[in-house]
Amino acid sequence: MFGCMKLKRGVFPGRFQPPHYGHVKAIKWALDKVADELIVIIGSAQDSFSLKNPLTAGERFTLLRKLLVNEAGSYLHRISIVPVMDINSNKQWVRYLEMLLPPFNTVISGNPLVQLLFEDSGYEVYTPPMFSRSKCSGTYIRKAIIEGSQWEDCVPETIVEDLNKMGFAERLKRLSRGDE
Amino acid sequence: MFGCMKLKRGVFPGRFQPPHYGHVKAIKWALDKVADELIVIIGSAQDSFSLKNPLTAGERFTLLRKLLVNEAGSYLHRISIVPVMDINSNKQWVRYLEMLLPPFNTVISGNPLVQLLFEDSGYEVYTPPMFSRSKCSGTYIRKAIIEGSQWEDCVPETIVEDLNKMGFAERLKRLSRGDE
Amino acid sequence: MFGCMKLKRGVFPGRFQPPHYGHVKAIKWALDKVADELIVIIGSAQDSFSLKNPLTAGERFTLLRKLLVNEAGSYLHRISIVPVMDINSNKQWVRYLEMLLPPFNTVISGNPLVQLLFEDSGYEVYTPPMFSRSKCSGTYIRKAIIEGSQWEDCVPETIVEDLNKMGFAERLKRLSRGDE
Amino acid sequence: MFGCMKLKRGVFPGRFQPPHYGHVKAIKWALDKVADELIVIIGSAQDSFSLKNPLTAGERFTLLRKLLVNEAGSYLHRISIVPVMDINSNKQWVRYLEMLLPPFNTVISGNPLVQLLFEDSGYEVYTPPMFSRSKCSGTYIRKAIIEGSQWEDCVPETIVEDLNKMGFAERLKRLSRGDE
Amino acid sequence: MFGCMKLKRGVFPGRFQPPHYGHVKAIKWALDKVADELIVIIGSAQDSFSLKNPLTAGERFTLLRKLLVNEAGSYLHRISIVPVMDINSNKQWVRYLEMLLPPFNTVISGNPLVQLLFEDSGYEVYTPPMFSRSKCSGTYIRKAIIEGSQWEDCVPETIVEDLNKMGFAERLKRLSRGDE
Amino acid sequence: MFGCMKLKRGVFPGRFQPPHYGHVKAIKWALDKVADELIVIIGSAQDSFSLKNPLTAGERFTLLRKLLVNEAGSYLHRISIVPVMDINSNKQWVRYLEMLLPPFNTVISGNPLVQLLFEDSGYEVYTPPMFSRSKCSGTYIRKAIIEGSQWEDCVPETIVEDLNKMGFAERLKRLSRGDE
Repeated sequence: MFGCMKLKRGVFPGRFQPPHYGHVKAIKWALDKVADELIVIIGSAQDSFSLKNPLTAGERFTLLRKLLVNEAGSYLHRISIVPVMDINSNKQWVRYLEMLLPPFNTVISGNPLVQLLFEDSGYEVYTPPMFSRSKCSGTYIRKAIIEGSQWEDCVPETIVEDLNKMGFAERLKRLSRGDE
Repeated sequence: MFGCMKLKRGVFPGRFQPPHYGHVKAIKWALDKVADELIVIIGSAQDSFSLKNPLTAGERFTLLRKLLVNEAGSYLHRISIVPVMDINSNKQWVRYLEMLLPPFNTVISGNPLVQLLFEDSGYEVYTPPMFSRSKCSGTYIRKAIIEGSQWEDCVPETIVEDLNKMGFAERLKRLSRGDE
Repeated sequence: MFGCMKLKRGVFPGRFQPPHYGHVKAIKWALDKVADELIVIIGSAQDSFSLKNPLTAGERFTLLRKLLVNEAGSYLHRISIVPVMDINSNKQWVRYLEMLLPPFNTVISGNPLVQLLFEDSGYEVYTPPMFSRSKCSGTYIRKAIIEGSQWEDCVPETIVEDLNKMGFAERLKRLSRGDE
Repeated sequence: MFGCMKLKRGVFPGRFQPPHYGHVKAIKWALDKVADELIVIIGSAQDSFSLKNPLTAGERFTLLRKLLVNEAGSYLHRISIVPVMDINSNKQWVRYLEMLLPPFNTVISGNPLVQLLFEDSGYEVYTPPMFSRSKCSGTYIRKAIIEGSQWEDCVPETIVEDLNKMGFAERLKRLSRGDE
Repeated sequence: MFGCMKLKRGVFPGRFQPPHYGHVKAIKWALDKVADELIVIIGSAQDSFSLKNPLTAGERFTLLRKLLVNEAGSYLHRISIVPVMDINSNKQWVRYLEMLLPPFNTVISGNPLVQLLFEDSGYEVYTPPMFSRSKCSGTYIRKAIIEGSQWEDCVPETIVEDLNKMGFAERLKRLSRGDE
Repeated sequence: MFGCMKLKRGVFPGRFQPPHYGHVKAIKWALDKVADELIVIIGSAQDSFSLKNPLTAGERFTLLRKLLVNEAGSYLHRISIVPVMDINSNKQWVRYLEMLLPPFNTVISGNPLVQLLFEDSGYEVYTPPMFSRSKCSGTYIRKAIIEGSQWEDCVPETIVEDLNKMGFAERLKRLSRGDE
């Protein structure tokens, strides 16, 4: 069924705040069903220590790679990870990715804005199946941490440990106290 | 009464998301009562595909010019349209317009921030009479589209058709689903 | 007790919208207890004429210096004031200050984000004792002005007069009417 | 011969430091032979008071419009003038113009970089016939002014007068003394 | 001898205009002698279609990966390629890389500025042995192309073919005709 | 003779690469003859580790303050030092300084571009008398260091020592070897 989609290079943009099981499932699905090769884009790479982007791009890069090594090891040689900073113009964003990256012909994303921008530039867009999204989005996890509720099911134990070493929960809670 | 204001070049800044009857009325009023010549500034020209600025500057330029051709044709030779990108400093904004544009000596705007900034730089500011503003502001139209309520009265039929061809309503609704 | 902290140069970042008694108390405390010398950073120096930053950096510089001359004159020779523009990356902010300023070894701030960023870069952070903070923060003062309630107790009379000459209350009220 | 090119909107990018007869000839040629409508782009609009760009975008806008009124009056209703600031990426420049401007389908330019970038984005590029280019380029005029040699033949008398009122020659000579 | 340097992650910054044998030799040397893992940074990623940076970051990424696949296949699993845009502050550059990338502890570079900046930030810097650098630097290759002299020895045949398909020589020659 | 110029606040912009006797003389002259108070602007504050700007703003701030303490101690209470980053528009530069700094009404500078920009904004400009400028400009000192000739006469011994501790000569020489 997806045979005709083979021999494709896809991009998978995300912010990975933090990386979680949902990302792993979506990346595996993309490489099983849509693309031969995947460029995983760590978006908003310039941002960190904010409520929306608590982790730096480098921290996300490290965690994401470890997550993929542990949970998607056999896919690893088909994946590149590239941090990409935001630009101030949505309309230019896809062209900017085309400039920075090797040629790609498809995108895998569940994000409405990403989908809209790639369709506007003429790309095929694939929506990965949800993985308990109500519980395991980055937004959910960050909210759960600030409120002190359970979130550790969304992330493998080894990543939880690394997040703890980075002081992720503490950082988020302090950021939630605001900037004045 | 407005005789002394003649022989003036005015600026009329707006975001035109989308252009509507209120803009036409204000531009005609400005050219009838305040200015001999008008530079219509399409502000936030770098932004698009966002809830506040769904259309690109080029789309707004095209729609606005068509709107003026149809609804204010006899004024057209006294109007220039110039897209202008935001800068990150309100205090510098008027000076930045002075640098980019031919000399002007007045501004026509109902926007409180625009009025404040031009007055701070020593300009005369004119507030155009409202045109059913409660219903026909850009903010109202964008909200009506997202909520599925009536908005087409604010815009001539031919512009509604062009907006439909651009997928304006669809774009806005998808943007309203958020960025993650 | 604080003897070992002597011979230190500290930084005291703030936005000073507007400068108030709380700033004076904190600066005196910092120079009494923590640092020999203090660089007072006027942050978000590029911003003005916004609800969060109504005053320009230059207006804040002028008011703050007058406030310190009047209320902390004997400390003045140990204080430098430096306006600093924001950058788009929290993680880089402390390194950026290190690049712009003479070497410093401590920070005095009650702001959770500032504290987090300096600790992340390995600095000692001191929290100054609150001065009726519930009433005399910049946020409180700006809110009180917009709502027409009392705020003049937070600021010496001479600074209130200067703020009135600058049209501070009028500016804030007009900004609160929004940007369209 | 050019019938099939009719019904086209062209862009004509330049820096106009200063506007001269060569620009007039090229614009007339473009509207005679290539395009129904022309958007004249004043490039590097952010720059001024430099050896390469002594005039501000606003000064160039004013001079260029006057030049066209005087020398190409019958073409005026088919011309728009738009100042455009540089971006830091040549590869994105054409996409950036597409975002800012109404749709266009051709470009008229003798500049090798402009030609290359538009061709790279799939546009037809037309090279206007040279108008004594060896003598009447912006580069030639600026060099002649600094060296005190003759340049006034390249520009109509009325524009020479305006340049003199702006202190163009004086400005250029002072800029040539360098920055430090 | 290099045993103590093992278990290290290094960065190898370059502009790769174009990728050539010198890069392959240096990368192999770095992975043989200095680092367990290497992040190859494609610098000045925002720039292209200029004399110094004719190729886009995406073109360089594609060519470099192909070059490494062909000439350093057994090293490939130890290499990541990341395009990085310039910032406007040399002093911040190393900190900016630390923010964007997984933790690294060494740098391999023959570039004097890169060496200086990393040493200033406390890093060990390794200079790779030169590979006929007088002939096979990017600067040499670009100059040779513009002057029409021989350069193809510096690059494997398959990369020469790809450069020809991209119109590399033609692009460079046209860029050398200048921007006005 | 200069009585009428008293009660003035002046700005003295420079790059201070490095600070030298010429700066001291000019600052003293400015405070003797022109201004009651002086804001010394450390320009191009974002730049460092380049041939034109080898020192960071912080290093220049530190050296300049020490130079003034040693050589102009009795003037110190009338001097503020403020690092200021470049913006990309000469025309806006004076307005940008007006936004960042307390009100000033004069400028002291021997730099042709600075003089031109302030005059264009309607300021009085004072040219300080030269202090053996042929030998003691920043440009001369940096050139002398790279060429290994004598420069130490331009700077007090204690500043030479500090420059040596910072590795100033070494840094400049390495930067002169170029960026590839």
